[in-house]
Amino acid sequence: MSDHLCRANLLYRDPTAPVDARVSDLLSRMTLREKVGQVNQRMYGWDAYRHTPDGGFELTDALYAETERFEGLGALYGLQRADAWSGVDHDNGPDAEHGAALAETVQRHVVERSRLGIPALFVEEVPHGLMALDGTVFPVNLAVGATWDPELYERAAAHAAAELRSRGGHVALVSALDVSRDPRWGRTEECYGEDPYLAARLTEALVRGAQGTVSPDGSFAADRAPVVLKHFAGQGATVGGRNSAESELGRRELHEIHLPAARAGVRAGAAAVMAAYNEVDGMPCAGNRALLTELLRDDWGFEGLVMADGLAVDRLARITGDKVSAGALALNSGVDLSLWDEGFTHLEEAVERGLVEETVLDTAVARVLRLKFRLGLFDGTPESSAPEAGGDLSKEVARAAVTLLRNDGVLPIGGNVTRVAVLGPQAATVAHQSGDYTAPQRPGTGSAVLDALRRLAPPGLDIRHARGCALTGDDLSGIPAAIAEAAAADLAVLVLGGSSARGAGTEFDANGAALTAVDHMTCGEGVDLAELRLGAAQYTLLDAVVATGTPTAVVLVQGRPHVVPDTAPALLTAWYPGPWGGEAIAEVLLGLAEPTGRLPVSVPRSAAQLPVYYNHKDTEYGGYVDGSAEPAYSFGHGLAYTDFVFGAPRLDGRTVAVEVTNTGVRQGRSMVQVYLRRMITASWPRTLELCAFEGVDLAPGECRTVLTRLGADRLAGADVVQIRVASSARAALTAVPLTLDLRS
Amino acid sequence: MSDHLCRANLLYRDPTAPVDARVSDLLSRMTLREKVGQVNQRMYGWDAYRHTPDGGFELTDALYAETERFEGLGALYGLQRADAWSGVDHDNGPDAEHGAALAETVQRHVVERSRLGIPALFVEEVPHGLMALDGTVFPVNLAVGATWDPELYERAAAHAAAELRSRGGHVALVSALDVSRDPRWGRTEECYGEDPYLAARLTEALVRGAQGTVSPDGSFAADRAPVVLKHFAGQGATVGGRNSAESELGRRELHEIHLPAARAGVRAGAAAVMAAYNEVDGMPCAGNRALLTELLRDDWGFEGLVMADGLAVDRLARITGDKVSAGALALNSGVDLSLWDEGFTHLEEAVERGLVEETVLDTAVARVLRLKFRLGLFDGTPESSAPEAGGDLSKEVARAAVTLLRNDGVLPIGGNVTRVAVLGPQAATVAHQSGDYTAPQRPGTGSAVLDALRRLAPPGLDIRHARGCALTGDDLSGIPAAIAEAAAADLAVLVLGGSSARGAGTEFDANGAALTAVDHMTCGEGVDLAELRLGAAQYTLLDAVVATGTPTAVVLVQGRPHVVPDTAPALLTAWYPGPWGGEAIAEVLLGLAEPTGRLPVSVPRSAAQLPVYYNHKDTEYGGYVDGSAEPAYSFGHGLAYTDFVFGAPRLDGRTVAVEVTNTGVRQGRSMVQVYLRRMITASWPRTLELCAFEGVDLAPGECRTVLTRLGADRLAGADVVQIRVASSARAALTAVPLTLDLRS
Repeated sequence: MSDHLCRANLLYRDPTAPVDARVSDLLSRMTLREKVGQVNQRMYGWDAYRHTPDGGFELTDALYAETERFEGLGALYGLQRADAWSGVDHDNGPDAEHGAALAETVQRHVVERSRLGIPALFVEEVPHGLMALDGTVFPVNLAVGATWDPELYERAAAHAAAELRSRGGHVALVSALDVSRDPRWGRTEECYGEDPYLAARLTEALVRGAQGTVSPDGSFAADRAPVVLKHFAGQGATVGGRNSAESELGRRELHEIHLPAARAGVRAGAAAVMAAYNEVDGMPCAGNRALLTELLRDDWGFEGLVMADGLAVDRLARITGDKVSAGALALNSGVDLSLWDEGFTHLEEAVERGLVEETVLDTAVARVLRLKFRLGLFDGTPESSAPEAGGDLSKEVARAAVTLLRNDGVLPIGGNVTRVAVLGPQAATVAHQSGDYTAPQRPGTGSAVLDALRRLAPPGLDIRHARGCALTGDDLSGIPAAIAEAAAADLAVLVLGGSSARGAGTEFDANGAALTAVDHMTCGEGVDLAELRLGAAQYTLLDAVVATGTPTAVVLVQGRPHVVPDTAPALLTAWYPGPWGGEAIAEVLLGLAEPTGRLPVSVPRSAAQLPVYYNHKDTEYGGYVDGSAEPAYSFGHGLAYTDFVFGAPRLDGRTVAVEVTNTGVRQGRSMVQVYLRRMITASWPRTLELCAFEGVDLAPGECRTVLTRLGADRLAGADVVQIRVASSARAALTAVPLTLDLRS
Repeated sequence: MSDHLCRANLLYRDPTAPVDARVSDLLSRMTLREKVGQVNQRMYGWDAYRHTPDGGFELTDALYAETERFEGLGALYGLQRADAWSGVDHDNGPDAEHGAALAETVQRHVVERSRLGIPALFVEEVPHGLMALDGTVFPVNLAVGATWDPELYERAAAHAAAELRSRGGHVALVSALDVSRDPRWGRTEECYGEDPYLAARLTEALVRGAQGTVSPDGSFAADRAPVVLKHFAGQGATVGGRNSAESELGRRELHEIHLPAARAGVRAGAAAVMAAYNEVDGMPCAGNRALLTELLRDDWGFEGLVMADGLAVDRLARITGDKVSAGALALNSGVDLSLWDEGFTHLEEAVERGLVEETVLDTAVARVLRLKFRLGLFDGTPESSAPEAGGDLSKEVARAAVTLLRNDGVLPIGGNVTRVAVLGPQAATVAHQSGDYTAPQRPGTGSAVLDALRRLAPPGLDIRHARGCALTGDDLSGIPAAIAEAAAADLAVLVLGGSSARGAGTEFDANGAALTAVDHMTCGEGVDLAELRLGAAQYTLLDAVVATGTPTAVVLVQGRPHVVPDTAPALLTAWYPGPWGGEAIAEVLLGLAEPTGRLPVSVPRSAAQLPVYYNHKDTEYGGYVDGSAEPAYSFGHGLAYTDFVFGAPRLDGRTVAVEVTNTGVRQGRSMVQVYLRRMITASWPRTLELCAFEGVDLAPGECRTVLTRLGADRLAGADVVQIRVASSARAALTAVPLTLDLRS
């Protein structure tokens, strides 16, 4: 403790000194080894502690060895993480009650072990809510994309950050930058969709929500957290939808589709980005100086931190020949902080061998330290109390995401329906509603569609259930019972889908991606699905239920679009809506809530027609000889329980005005989508590009004028453009265009 | 005629003057309009003549109008072309007997109409032999790729050039540069395969064969023809295998996969390249200055002609706003000669409006004129007589391409077989053996598999036939008869496949691509196939024949790999082998010839796993949760009727030596394939890259040492590489590597 007192007079310990001065001062006092320690994040957090018989936690020799090795600790990943991979659950892991104390214990050890008293960054997964015991699970990003509601998402992000900070965590890892271009990819659920503009708006909302208002000196509020935007860049376009595989992206394609979300996030002040696994034009992102330094820092002026994805630095040894030079390549390229790699632990040797200059290391260390100062870690962080329970907010997002794709008069469930058969493998369980990167849930959290329907249905509505079949496999033994229930009902609600739920039996790669999927798994990191098909028995079940003649509403709970035949009169997708998703779905089915979601991705007809996205280049392709090249459902599509009519759009400068009228008898939310079509332009244009959107709630008969503004960014590079306002990308193809000549 | 005499004293008319001086002199005498005429190739050749009742030809008003318009004619496309699109056939078109006279008549008119006596270039399609009545049809490029025999292909190319010149044609349009990366593309048949090195070797052979030895002054022999290599560049990588769609290629991917064939062709002296329809990173090739000028001319030093693909210049109006500026953009980008476009006809206006400098036009005109001088068109071209009939050479190529993919002891047809059932929609017809870009054939040309088997089989072998089903559709009515024949036979030969044969009923786009395919068509330009499946009834036929228990050899006649289940004990592919392909197949089935073909493309398991090629990046992808990412059959795979053993390879400098032994009891041809695996390298490497190959014929028990040399080009950019010698790409994955350290 006397050591700490001595340090109190030093500049870097002065809370009133400017952050940059504190960083410089501290850096000047550090040994090479201490510096190397700061850019490492080598441990799995769950290896740092052990549950004790009395219900507390004690620190492990593994943690002691790690802090000994570098005389401190740069960052610690996943101290609060709980899931099948980490093996952490309610029996052995830190929950809401104990998490903050565990973090404090670890931090005390780190600071004491550090000659200069440098605290560690605690970095946690916050992909759709905090991935820790008792963390609130939100709908996955693909569902967030379906809300088209940045303001709502901003609130969800703020909530998740507050939970993180209340548990002693500091930095949130959040998928935001991957743009879905191939639904075979198991991480499609982590994308906001296929559109760069929608993704950019949501990424801004994430940064605003999670980081809050940063004070002039750069410090974060106690209930907000710096985010690491993952993954930079182009990971949504790996060939074949294969996880971590190569992309073949050209420069324009990269900039037009895969970089706008990152650019928006950086502009919004994101504290960090994560360098992705994939390569961009031959060079993996973690070793890609053109991307991490020339573009991100030199062109965009990014001053935050670049973290590499887990073991991405070590993978560079495939081309450098060894991990020491791999570490040097990553550091020289622009990676500041490593994750789990061996490569960065050898940076002392790399400096000594002349593979990297110590000044390059200093720059990276300074970025790590700056973030610690901005978080107030040197200054006795104020305690942050846990926010209110997040379930209602999670359900609000889930409700906003439910997307009605087809409705031949079946929904909402009307007064004429007296008996409903709720069928299918997703009907009566919450186990598969939440997607990958989800911590174990306490029993009773959220509800399945069946339970919610029973709770919310009007009295007298008879609700029956049969599962019919499992998510995967071809066991048809449960189908007769499901047919019987369907045949006896006025309406069948058939809840089908996929699952990213990790469980016992999943084998994991060293970075946590699934290596061998347990049999219900069809989605999530490492689980790519070539044919885009649900389990075989689900198709048999669908056919059998439809064949009963009972009107059927199909509900899909899924992490990617699947190929499902259009045989039932109603079809909804809820994506992975989270634990409270069953209730959100039930509310929409019953008409207690309006369906407001819109597709953030095109839904393909088959895997054979991939890629399918609305913003392809304008080549007027006629189709395959054996099938269409157009999607089954268009980007932006989503029905309400009422109808809307758009008036002719008008332009006033760069503002587009359009009158929207609710012509039906129910209230509803229209999503005004403004698309751009470049007519005279310097390079080959896309058929359409989303350039603005705005949701509007309208009572029956109500008419309102919706104004949206065209950003200068979206118009760059074009001389003449058309503006088309429509309710989906497909509808925009035939919408009356407004022409805007930008040369005048 | 007096005019001609006057001109005789001018420098450009002096055959002894250097070509460049003649070009300059002529150019200096030309009006702007005459210059514009030289870079246009506006007409369809078949519109230039009309068949007369007496069996001759007369010129049309359309030709007169065209030569009037520009006071001459730059180039004329397809004067000899015959097919369903042109409507030219044996009843109304120029055949071997009359083609040269027609060309002479047209040329006489052009020269007379031209103030300066400038002859026209006659440009013809020579995709796999001369596409004209009586032109010898060769196997398609995909079959050429399967031969792995550049020397054989060189002879075929020389033959086709001689036929072209003997008909008064000058310039051969030949597909060579498209690399097959997605078999859904209908033009896969026009590719040499998926590998850039194999494509480069065959492109060199094409240029050597077609152009022959060019004299020091640049002139071509009378029986050789300058080639236009098509298409430049990247057209094999359009998204979704969609014809003319965008590619998303990055710079490295473009250079490593899609440009080596062009680079090799340019080095071999190719007279011209064709700018492709597709875009490269946002800019269509015909308007892509980075590609056509900065790369092709400035970096590579190409001095030949750049022709745009048909109507590709006019397509640029989509971004420039009108066809005048589209023409200017193309000319400024590096297009010298247009095809069918309106854009280039307005270049006078473009010059006058300042959209393009006249000096840029002069450069293009000079390139057109230079080619005319090199062809001797100003000097009274020596007559070229027709070469020998080409059928035997075509059959030799077809035979070399037959590839045995699986053989469980069924082939060759042995003495124990007394009755063979020859079944399937490709068994008894030559109509679908030749692929797209094929002129109508005289009855009796070539032979079907059934006829050839009957002719070549040993006496006493009873050969029966039933078609079973059609190429497309689900009519199963013929299947019982086929089952009966199969059940009664010792062996079934089931000839399945696809078709690119255009016929009455095909509707065409303005550039000749199929718009609406007639019902047997599953391949060819404009006919992309999403699911990669044969017609539905063919699968039923296959299942039914195999179910009889009679050993079955499946033969595929096809323009792309199709998905065919591995249920029969033997499987061959002949690709589209041309009219004499039936005989080549029969020879291999009977063991009269050895199977020597090797796969030039990977054969996928399904469309859902695309893309599938061996030379993907080295990402160690584990596979989809519902299927493998590996192909059904590997690039380079092909069985013989004997077995070969490779000894341990040795390196002597850059020469790889390997002993190959024929360990079986028949003679055969082994294809020694040398693969590179980059270990320490500047960018992310592919798993394997073919870097050399050499075929060797071996008698039973014979052993020979095969030497191959590693080109410096192939090793560029790597510090340490492994060399692996194997019989296929898949076998190379486990072959013992030789390590070569290039740093020393």
